[in-house]
Amino acid sequence: MNSKIKPFKIAQKFDAAARTKFAEKIFNELRELSADTVGVSRQSYGPGEQEAMELIARYAEEEGLEVDWDSAANLVISLPGKAKINPSILCGSHLDSVPRGGNFDGAAGVIAGLMALIQINRSGLDPVVPIKLIALRGEESAWFGLCYLGSYSLFGQMTAKDLDRKHRSSGRTLREYMSKAGANVAAISQGQTLLDFKDIAAYVELHIEQGPVMVARDVPVGIVTGLRGNIRYNKVLCQGEAGHSGAVPRWLRHDAVLATADLLNRMDEHWRVLLERGLDLVLTAGTLSTNPETHGLTRIPGECEFSLEFRSQSIETLEAFDELVRAEVRSIEKERGVTFEFPVRDITKPAIMDSQWISRLSNSCESLNTKYETLPSGAGHDAAVFANNGIPSAMIFIRNNHGSHNPKEAMEIDDFLKGVDVLHHALLSPP
Amino acid sequence: MNSKIKPFKIAQKFDAAARTKFAEKIFNELRELSADTVGVSRQSYGPGEQEAMELIARYAEEEGLEVDWDSAANLVISLPGKAKINPSILCGSHLDSVPRGGNFDGAAGVIAGLMALIQINRSGLDPVVPIKLIALRGEESAWFGLCYLGSYSLFGQMTAKDLDRKHRSSGRTLREYMSKAGANVAAISQGQTLLDFKDIAAYVELHIEQGPVMVARDVPVGIVTGLRGNIRYNKVLCQGEAGHSGAVPRWLRHDAVLATADLLNRMDEHWRVLLERGLDLVLTAGTLSTNPETHGLTRIPGECEFSLEFRSQSIETLEAFDELVRAEVRSIEKERGVTFEFPVRDITKPAIMDSQWISRLSNSCESLNTKYETLPSGAGHDAAVFANNGIPSAMIFIRNNHGSHNPKEAMEIDDFLKGVDVLHHALLSPP
Repeated sequence: MNSKIKPFKIAQKFDAAARTKFAEKIFNELRELSADTVGVSRQSYGPGEQEAMELIARYAEEEGLEVDWDSAANLVISLPGKAKINPSILCGSHLDSVPRGGNFDGAAGVIAGLMALIQINRSGLDPVVPIKLIALRGEESAWFGLCYLGSYSLFGQMTAKDLDRKHRSSGRTLREYMSKAGANVAAISQGQTLLDFKDIAAYVELHIEQGPVMVARDVPVGIVTGLRGNIRYNKVLCQGEAGHSGAVPRWLRHDAVLATADLLNRMDEHWRVLLERGLDLVLTAGTLSTNPETHGLTRIPGECEFSLEFRSQSIETLEAFDELVRAEVRSIEKERGVTFEFPVRDITKPAIMDSQWISRLSNSCESLNTKYETLPSGAGHDAAVFANNGIPSAMIFIRNNHGSHNPKEAMEIDDFLKGVDVLHHALLSPP
Repeated sequence: MNSKIKPFKIAQKFDAAARTKFAEKIFNELRELSADTVGVSRQSYGPGEQEAMELIARYAEEEGLEVDWDSAANLVISLPGKAKINPSILCGSHLDSVPRGGNFDGAAGVIAGLMALIQINRSGLDPVVPIKLIALRGEESAWFGLCYLGSYSLFGQMTAKDLDRKHRSSGRTLREYMSKAGANVAAISQGQTLLDFKDIAAYVELHIEQGPVMVARDVPVGIVTGLRGNIRYNKVLCQGEAGHSGAVPRWLRHDAVLATADLLNRMDEHWRVLLERGLDLVLTAGTLSTNPETHGLTRIPGECEFSLEFRSQSIETLEAFDELVRAEVRSIEKERGVTFEFPVRDITKPAIMDSQWISRLSNSCESLNTKYETLPSGAGHDAAVFANNGIPSAMIFIRNNHGSHNPKEAMEIDDFLKGVDVLHHALLSPP
């Protein structure tokens, strides 16, 4: 345990005032533990994440909860005497962060779960289905270029090659980091599952919203309907023909920029129309460039390179949009005498949240008179890994300004406590 | 005179066969004189151009024509005894090239003029208005970053600051180069005109086409209606708002790439419609890029930078299209919540070719049964300088494959000779 932090005592009476104080204090302690030049850095399976895990474990022990570490070195906390009883409901999130990131991304879900467990422990209730907190390792891809390390390990989705990945700055392998943290790297590298799927009745994750929707719509709590999957083309090359910008008339041009603009504009318009029809979709061409070695103000651009990514909660929408892209590409190639070269597409499937749990969380919001909306998650979360392994999964979003993965994350503690109350209420609700 | 080239004798009888041989030989001699690693390099007011000038002068002397150098060190060749008689019709072009450029850009017009003068000299005719050849210096901006050095000097359009410009590789000033070539740099740097405008009855320039129109339309000879002017914006910045590519829905996005694509697409459509209405216009966004320091596949692009250039023979069309750009920008800014920052615009006025000379050249083509079309010049030429100083000016284009400013220029000697015949015929035609 990092000696610079001395966790304060949990209040005898865990009422609203005590809970506010607890949340503020523990977030501050976490921030101090992992402060970087700006923001916080909690490395996946490394420093920062480890100290955060130990801080949570120490609070759990102080409360008299049971503390365990699973074979992937994730932290698992149970009500007294309930560690071995399964199936159980897991709530939690991850404790790592991106380099110089924000304090709330991940940690909010772990602290929310800890607070819900403390409340249940203080109430003396004995839930029919045991409730456990899981603090997952390595959700961020920033450190080893791969995300969901802790949950992938549990479900046997890691390979020996993945464990050879090198840390972004130290150059040491993920295997070394995982081994040092206490994970069973032998089993993980062989893709062995580290749990019995049937032992998990559900996975419920609270997380800050990483988009601006809840701020814009003025709701403190969101219930996630699904996590968007995506189709990605890292580099599409539009190849036309360079030429003198003054001397070639329109009918003899094969302008790669105007062809690309045409394609992006057509896809933007399809997107607009599909949204009107109620489909879930976002479209991004994040990088775009003519060839800096050959382009010029007075030269018809012969090449234009761009990335294309679209996300949806529906695999059908993703596939249909991909087909639309191809159809428009064929049309533009014919009309403008250019070609588009597409790389192999990367596809990540969407994850659907469990409809019964969505109802349960909605009912809890209504019971608590908490304003909420349902919304998709555009970003990925460990909940997608659990859901896509057949575990009923759910997510609660907390309103948050300025997005995430930056030190300007701005979640209000009041909003957070509303989310904790919804989580606590739903965990204790009948299915 | 460069000793490696020994010009061959001009045939006694300058008939069709002799003219073909002459053209092939003199172009080859020029190519050898100025050969670079690839293509030819004839530096403005420097090596290559100087040797080319001297080669042309030597042929003129051999023919018994009068050779002079004007105060800007341009070469002026007259029929015997006619050097001092004015006003006269000037025909010609420039003798410099871009670095590692093609052999025909510029030189074709000078050699065409030389051949026309030889034909007239052999015919014993005494044109009412004397006809002179002018081989201009420094038309290409590649060497000193400024074009039309020879003709600008004549018309008093150079400044002392222009003469301070440094050569692209030697670092020495244009003043030094011009002085060494024999130009009156004192007068030029003061912006003095070096000729009496009234002494020039007309300027007629033959030049290879630098676009693909004549190849596509299968015409060997073109008559230029005007030289397109242009409006240029070197770097337009579209500023939106960066964000998570998955977590921000369409209604909260301010995507700089989709906004830019929208603008370019709208202008492309306006262009198409204006062409249908018979207006002359070309549009190019030659450079385009998101910010490489902050962009990414999964990040909504917050910035997109691009260049914008449009050219037309009509200043009204340029101004109207500029107004359309601004109107669409305002509309997109409002619709998409982005801003477009425009730099100060660069504007170059179009130059209109003289309608009487266009008729004269058309009549010559018809008399000679030479297939021709009228077309605009998208590139700039010395003819624009003469025209914009009030001199009736005209241009003949010769079909040429692969554009210009590269060693792959491909003008057929047969097409060139058709152009020489048209030039010769028109020079001797009554006004």
